[in-house]
Amino acid sequence: MRWSLETLGIMHSCYQEKFAVPRQPGLAPSAYATLELLPPYNLPECVDGLEGFSHLWISFIFHQNLAQGWKPKVRPPRLGGNKKVGVFASRSTFRPNGLGLSVVKLEGIDLNEGVKLHLSGADLIDGTPVVDIKPYIPWVDGKPEALAAWVAAPPELLKVSFQNTAELQLAAHSQGKRLKQLISEVLAQNPRPAYQKTDLARVYGVKLADLNVQFCYLADTSIEVVAIH
Amino acid sequence: MRWSLETLGIMHSCYQEKFAVPRQPGLAPSAYATLELLPPYNLPECVDGLEGFSHLWISFIFHQNLAQGWKPKVRPPRLGGNKKVGVFASRSTFRPNGLGLSVVKLEGIDLNEGVKLHLSGADLIDGTPVVDIKPYIPWVDGKPEALAAWVAAPPELLKVSFQNTAELQLAAHSQGKRLKQLISEVLAQNPRPAYQKTDLARVYGVKLADLNVQFCYLADTSIEVVAIH
Repeated sequence: MRWSLETLGIMHSCYQEKFAVPRQPGLAPSAYATLELLPPYNLPECVDGLEGFSHLWISFIFHQNLAQGWKPKVRPPRLGGNKKVGVFASRSTFRPNGLGLSVVKLEGIDLNEGVKLHLSGADLIDGTPVVDIKPYIPWVDGKPEALAAWVAAPPELLKVSFQNTAELQLAAHSQGKRLKQLISEVLAQNPRPAYQKTDLARVYGVKLADLNVQFCYLADTSIEVVAIH
Repeated sequence: MRWSLETLGIMHSCYQEKFAVPRQPGLAPSAYATLELLPPYNLPECVDGLEGFSHLWISFIFHQNLAQGWKPKVRPPRLGGNKKVGVFASRSTFRPNGLGLSVVKLEGIDLNEGVKLHLSGADLIDGTPVVDIKPYIPWVDGKPEALAAWVAAPPELLKVSFQNTAELQLAAHSQGKRLKQLISEVLAQNPRPAYQKTDLARVYGVKLADLNVQFCYLADTSIEVVAIH
């Protein structure tokens, strides 16, 4: 049995590439995104009443990963990237049907031309196709008693600092303050692949919003932003 | 853009028909279901480590509703069935792409022949095709601060009583005690369509597990089970 799903909307997001996207939603609350609904779903009627909800569930397709398919076992970053678990015991982005699910904060609804939902805390990369939007209902969706094995608590944050050059480059940007906060939240998640050892000599680059952020590790638990272009 | 999703598993559930299925998961915790994975997804490796999680997200297809399509506005039962809101501001089962999403409790994993997941608290009808399974992560998925407009709190429960005949019929059933609890939880949700007025003369019937349950309303807020076959 196969089911045909249509793209309802496209995510426009500060995450321009997969590298450094936080591994769960909500970890970088300053992350911003706009979900643009597509015809025939972009009628104001379709979102009437949505303004009464603070959070939404977004179901989407891991479209950049579909071609690579799936395997029965995956290596979750939280287990150091070297221990395997079943694909259904993980939220791996390489999974049967390639369905993603994220809870996001609804910041505003723009009905000027079609429908655009302004969101924060999302972990979807720019261009992600969205296949469903549902309101979050706290007494249904909240299970504070739930046990979650090796992901029982949020990951430890890295310390993030900025070299003077990077500080000056941010200060010259019209959105510098907001972007500094975003960069800090994203890099604190320890973006490098879990199986890689800390390489103090390596300079990483990541495209975030309209920036190209260059950073290096000062230690296993500390990152410094070197430059921003 | 269209995406082709495959059925990963089939839900075997105590809910034999749409009528009286609770309107959200978790409202009838005694509801039981077994999710049977289908080849090639029914390998024990695919669920390795899942036993460390107490709750799961199930993404599924509202397969009985697909043919009827969707409309931009729907009437949520919680608004009395006469006020309309946008389809994306509701969890209506008539929605673009027909995707459902429920958090369920994982009661056990049976690896004897393929993979079967024993679940409770589900709100899926028997035969529902499942398209994804993800572990529930409380610090990601729990948003106790979320605002949820007209669904800010669970619905008021009806009082449910059993006529002597029904009591005797349940006592004669090998699973009578468990089924009585299930019937009580399900009927307390006020199963009749929200737009219908209370009709004290009407006898309703619902297929639940292997039973045919007949009940009537004693008042707006009270139900009596008349007979069970």
